[in-house]
Amino acid sequence: MTAAVLDGTAPARAIRERVTTAAAGLVGRGIVPKLAVVVATDDPGAGWYVRSLAAAAGRVGITCEVISLGADAFTDDIHRTLLRLSSDDTVHGIVLQAPLPDGVRVEDLAAAIACEKDVDGANPLSAGRLAAGLPAYPPATAAAVLCLLDHHQIELTGRNAVVVGRSLVVGKPTAQLLLQRDATVAICHRHTKDLAAHTRSADVLVVAVGRIGLIRAEHVGDGAVVVDVGTNTAPDGSLAGDVDATDGRAAAISPVPGGVGPVTTALLLEHTVQSAGAAWCS
Amino acid sequence: MTAAVLDGTAPARAIRERVTTAAAGLVGRGIVPKLAVVVATDDPGAGWYVRSLAAAAGRVGITCEVISLGADAFTDDIHRTLLRLSSDDTVHGIVLQAPLPDGVRVEDLAAAIACEKDVDGANPLSAGRLAAGLPAYPPATAAAVLCLLDHHQIELTGRNAVVVGRSLVVGKPTAQLLLQRDATVAICHRHTKDLAAHTRSADVLVVAVGRIGLIRAEHVGDGAVVVDVGTNTAPDGSLAGDVDATDGRAAAISPVPGGVGPVTTALLLEHTVQSAGAAWCS
Repeated sequence: MTAAVLDGTAPARAIRERVTTAAAGLVGRGIVPKLAVVVATDDPGAGWYVRSLAAAAGRVGITCEVISLGADAFTDDIHRTLLRLSSDDTVHGIVLQAPLPDGVRVEDLAAAIACEKDVDGANPLSAGRLAAGLPAYPPATAAAVLCLLDHHQIELTGRNAVVVGRSLVVGKPTAQLLLQRDATVAICHRHTKDLAAHTRSADVLVVAVGRIGLIRAEHVGDGAVVVDVGTNTAPDGSLAGDVDATDGRAAAISPVPGGVGPVTTALLLEHTVQSAGAAWCS
Repeated sequence: MTAAVLDGTAPARAIRERVTTAAAGLVGRGIVPKLAVVVATDDPGAGWYVRSLAAAAGRVGITCEVISLGADAFTDDIHRTLLRLSSDDTVHGIVLQAPLPDGVRVEDLAAAIACEKDVDGANPLSAGRLAAGLPAYPPATAAAVLCLLDHHQIELTGRNAVVVGRSLVVGKPTAQLLLQRDATVAICHRHTKDLAAHTRSADVLVVAVGRIGLIRAEHVGDGAVVVDVGTNTAPDGSLAGDVDATDGRAAAISPVPGGVGPVTTALLLEHTVQSAGAAWCS
């Protein structure tokens, strides 16, 4: 059986169209939506991503300011920049791009991103508000997983969702969002014994580890819907996910590239126009 | 087979002894540790609990101030009180007692509890910091579950933990703490299909729903360790947990009363002396 493709390019396009309309409306009210991206790395992948994000922002009518602090920036430099952007009324969204310089920890910095501008859900307060059911932006990647499932009309209530990976940016918030949507949620990770037994029980399997080929046919149950959040560089230089199970029994699998990725970028832009249109974070 | 008893009174006593020593040390440095409990209910159970908490505080050398705002208090009254206590240097721990008056939501208030005094982990920032691995007080009940498991030397790494209930005060933070301890964690709730199939797979089963008899022998797998967080009033007026499976195959079950409850109270007091001894929340 060939699994259906959980395409992300169509929902991403639909989001960008909504955002374009919203951004134009804001400009009509004298508000130019603006996303600030703070970069403190010379990683080529990150550089490529930030350029493509800035280009995507421009196409939907969002100004994107990239603040490059250099790969040798100190925690203090980055912290000061985040505070300045947080108090700058012309900035509506703030993203702190990964990776950070050696010795600089995102946990020590993310609280400096004003919650109402925290469009990638990095501030611990955003995570806590999310868990409490209060308004907050989830990390865009986690939101993209849900968005992709919704676009393809995957039922979640009462279904068994298994999340592989417990990172702060994907695994944990995705589990939180699935739980809010009334799925029964299990979280697996490197210490999980018999990973395949867990993942085979999933109606909805979300994989966010960052290891090529982690999930194979034997990890996937009959009729499962698989969302692959992995973005790995294959030996041939191409982009590859964590899932290599297209010959399995899955009903549907999100492709890499073209699955979660484009939706993530589109949602970052949508969060930015939402932030420009309303302030809700107390 | 009769399940072993995961007694909570002995670990509670050990914690109270540590707290007594720590409180005396603080007094020697001129700091009188103080817990403030804000009460806005005339619920008899809450009244009884607050009186027993205040008495327990007194016995270990912690001053406990109970601020009774009445069952008709408005959100604003309670908010103002929490802000005043948060900025009062003589107060080290703040608890907002449940239940709250009709129409008053804890989510609208808990952010007014200063994070470094949030000894019952109610502020969303505490939850977010916890998820991020930053210092924060977890809700005392969730911390008590882990404390009880540790006291009885229950291994968690790589084991299957199932949490039944997804409340903000118990289910979610307990899942978070179990995940931090490298358990594979599943969260079940009212929408879970075939609850027994999930709970039977648990090496460690934590039940925090609030329904007498929810978990019976058929819900418990061979050799499972069961922590019963339920505190229900039985028809005869006695205290009863959510678990009625002592004739089952569990290796150990925490009793109600005498399990999680006394550890929770002791940990609230321990968090208060920790807060009095150091400020860490940025």
